[in-house]
Amino acid sequence: MKFTINRLPFLEQLTNVGRAVSGKATIPILQGIKISVEEDKITLTGSDSEISIESTLYVEDETYHIQIEETGSIVLTARLFSDIVRKLPTGQVTIESNAQNQTLITSGKAHFTLIGQDGSAYPRLPDYSEEFRLIIPTIPFKNMVNQTIFSASNQESRPVLTGLHLVAEEGFIRGVATDSHRLSQRDVSMTETKEELGFDQLTIPKKSVVELTRIVKDDQIIEMLVLDKQIIFFVDNVIIYSRLLEGNYPETDRLIPTEYETRITVNSNTFHEAIDRASLISHQGKNNVVQLSFDNEIVSLYVRGNERGEGVEHIEVKAVEGSPTTIAFNPDYMKEALKSFEGVDIHIDIQSAIRPMLLSPATYEEDNEEEVEDAKHNSLLQILTPIRTH
Amino acid sequence: MKFTINRLPFLEQLTNVGRAVSGKATIPILQGIKISVEEDKITLTGSDSEISIESTLYVEDETYHIQIEETGSIVLTARLFSDIVRKLPTGQVTIESNAQNQTLITSGKAHFTLIGQDGSAYPRLPDYSEEFRLIIPTIPFKNMVNQTIFSASNQESRPVLTGLHLVAEEGFIRGVATDSHRLSQRDVSMTETKEELGFDQLTIPKKSVVELTRIVKDDQIIEMLVLDKQIIFFVDNVIIYSRLLEGNYPETDRLIPTEYETRITVNSNTFHEAIDRASLISHQGKNNVVQLSFDNEIVSLYVRGNERGEGVEHIEVKAVEGSPTTIAFNPDYMKEALKSFEGVDIHIDIQSAIRPMLLSPATYEEDNEEEVEDAKHNSLLQILTPIRTH
Repeated sequence: MKFTINRLPFLEQLTNVGRAVSGKATIPILQGIKISVEEDKITLTGSDSEISIESTLYVEDETYHIQIEETGSIVLTARLFSDIVRKLPTGQVTIESNAQNQTLITSGKAHFTLIGQDGSAYPRLPDYSEEFRLIIPTIPFKNMVNQTIFSASNQESRPVLTGLHLVAEEGFIRGVATDSHRLSQRDVSMTETKEELGFDQLTIPKKSVVELTRIVKDDQIIEMLVLDKQIIFFVDNVIIYSRLLEGNYPETDRLIPTEYETRITVNSNTFHEAIDRASLISHQGKNNVVQLSFDNEIVSLYVRGNERGEGVEHIEVKAVEGSPTTIAFNPDYMKEALKSFEGVDIHIDIQSAIRPMLLSPATYEEDNEEEVEDAKHNSLLQILTPIRTH
Repeated sequence: MKFTINRLPFLEQLTNVGRAVSGKATIPILQGIKISVEEDKITLTGSDSEISIESTLYVEDETYHIQIEETGSIVLTARLFSDIVRKLPTGQVTIESNAQNQTLITSGKAHFTLIGQDGSAYPRLPDYSEEFRLIIPTIPFKNMVNQTIFSASNQESRPVLTGLHLVAEEGFIRGVATDSHRLSQRDVSMTETKEELGFDQLTIPKKSVVELTRIVKDDQIIEMLVLDKQIIFFVDNVIIYSRLLEGNYPETDRLIPTEYETRITVNSNTFHEAIDRASLISHQGKNNVVQLSFDNEIVSLYVRGNERGEGVEHIEVKAVEGSPTTIAFNPDYMKEALKSFEGVDIHIDIQSAIRPMLLSPATYEEDNEEEVEDAKHNSLLQILTPIRTH
C-alpha cells in the first residue's frame, strides 16, 4: 500500500474518524484507524462498540491531491498516527506499508516507521441497502442536541436513559433527554408527515449524536437512515454508524406539567448569573441546593453552605403571577437548563415544592400569533425535579 | 469594619495577594486573605509559609473609589471570597463585618454572608527598616526568570535546588537554575558595580519569583531589598515577602563546558519542531530518549519507541563543524531549553556522548563586535546532561 496526500485535509478526516475510537478499547485493533486504499479512493475507518465512523477520500477530489501508487490496507494506532500527521513538517505526507505491516510515514526529511496491523483483521461495518434517507435540517438538529443532551443520564444502570430519544410526530421530530431528575425536550420542524418520517421512535447513544454534531458543519446536509437496531447518518463523504439503545423509553409526555400555581417570568441570563453566584456558596456545603421563593411581591434566591456562609439575592423579574411559594433545586442542573435558552426571557412554572418545575420560553400578551406559534413550535422545555429540604 | 470599593480593581488586588495563598495550607487562617481597614487605606494580605503578598489600597487613589465607614479587620477564605467578588452583579461592593466576624458582602440586590476569622489572629509580616532598595530592570528580569526557572528542581530532597539562584557580578546579576540534570543561566545587566549591588548571592524559592513575574506589569518598576534570610520585592503598592532558601548552591561556573568537539548551528524553532515530532515516538517507549547524531555531513535525530515504531529525521542546519558524534537526551528537557531561545539560531556544543552539551545563541563571523558583545552579555545558556544508552 502506498499513497501521497495533502496533509491538512487528510488530518481533518483522521480527526473525524478518530472521534469514534475510544482510548479504552479492549479489542486492540479498535485502538487503530483503518486505512484502506483502492484505485479511486482511500477509506478511513474508526470504531468502538457503539459507533463507527467512515470517511471516503476520492482521488477525483482535488482537495486531497491524492496519488495512489499501490492499493492495500493497514490499521495504525489512532492517537499516535494522528499526532504524527499533525506535526509533520511539510504540506504532503506519503504513507507506505509492506507485507510485514511496517508502515513508513514520510514528510520532507522526517521519516517515521510504525508497526501496524493487517487491514483484513479489522471488523467489517454493517451493510445497508440504499433505502429511504431522511434529510434532517442541520442547524435546528444541532441546536436540539445541544439544548437537550446534558439531561441524558451517565449511569449505565438504565442504559436507555443515556441516549437522545427521538419521536416522529406530524411535521416535526421531538428530541427528549432525561436522567429522571430533569428532562429536556425540543422539537425540530420537518416538512414530512408522521408517516413519511418512516420511524416511530428510537434512542441514540449520547456519544453518537454528540460526535455527529461535532463533525457536521452548519452548511452541510445530514441524511438519516433508520435500520432495525441501527441508525446511519451521512454527512458528505462521512458515514456515522451507530447502534440504537434498546429498552422502553419512559413516556415523558405525562411528566410535563400543564398547569402552575406560580409563574415567574425572568430573563434567562439574569437568572443564570444569580444562580451562578449562589452556587459558589452551595458548593461549599454538603447539599448542593439553592432555594427560590416568591413572597411579598419579591422573588429571591437563598443559599446556605456548610457553616461557611449564606447568600440571598432579590431577582429582577419581568413578571410574577400566582401564589407565594418556595422551591429548592440543584443549581448546577438549573444552570445547564437556563443556558439552553440562550438569553431569552423564560417562564418558570411552579406547582408546589415537591412537584417538577417547568422552564419554557416566555410568551407575552402583546406577542402576535406568529410569535406565539413559533415559540410553541420549537417548544424548548426544561423540567427540573425539586429537592425536598426539611 | 465597613467599606465600599470599586469591584474590579479590588478583585485585581485580591487576585494578587491570593497568589500567595496555598489551598493546602495546614494553618487554617492562612487559607484566608486578611482585609485590614484604616482611616486612609485598606491593606490586603495573603501568605503561606514561604511567601507573603501585601497590597495597599489608598483612599486617595481614585481607581478604587473607596468609602470607609468603619475601620477594623477580618480574614475571609481566599478562594470563595474572590470568587464571590468576581461574580457580583454591580460595579461596587460593600463589605461589612461585625464583632462576631460575620461578614456581609453586598452588591446591588445580592447579599452574601461569610463567617470570617478575627484579623488580629493573622500572623504578622516581617518588619523591615527602610534600607537600600535595588531597582531591577523589569523586562530583562522577567525574561531571565522565564528562561531559567523550568530547570529548577521539584524535588524537596535538596531544597536549595528548587529555587532561582542570583549572583551579584560586576555590572550584572546572573540567574541560575539547575536540577542537576540540566542547567539554565542568564544575566541581567545592571548599572551598579558588584559592590553597589549590595548582596553576594542568594536563592529565591521558585514560587516567589514566578508569582513576582505574574504580578509585575512590564511598565512597572521592581525594587528589591535583601535582608538576612529574606528578600522583599516592591511593585507599586504591592509588597512580596519571600524567605530565602538555605544551603550551599553548587558552584555552577565550572559545569559550563568551555570547548567542544562538535558544534551544530541550527535555528531553535526548526530544531524544536523536529524534537517535538520525535518525542511523540519516545513518549511511547519506556525510556524517553532521542538521539542526535552528526555523520557523513548529515545531522539527524533518531528515536525509537517500545515496539510501537521509530523515527528518523534529517535536520536542516545552518552549519556544522568538528567530529562525527552521537548523543542522547531527554526530548522534553530539550524542548524547554530550546523554547527559551525564542526562535533565534543557536550553537549546540558537544564534547562527547557522556559530557553535558551546551546550547547558546549563535554568533556568526560576519556579526559586528556590538552584536557579539550583546549576545555574550545576555549570555543565555542551557546545559543538558546526556542520557547514556547501551
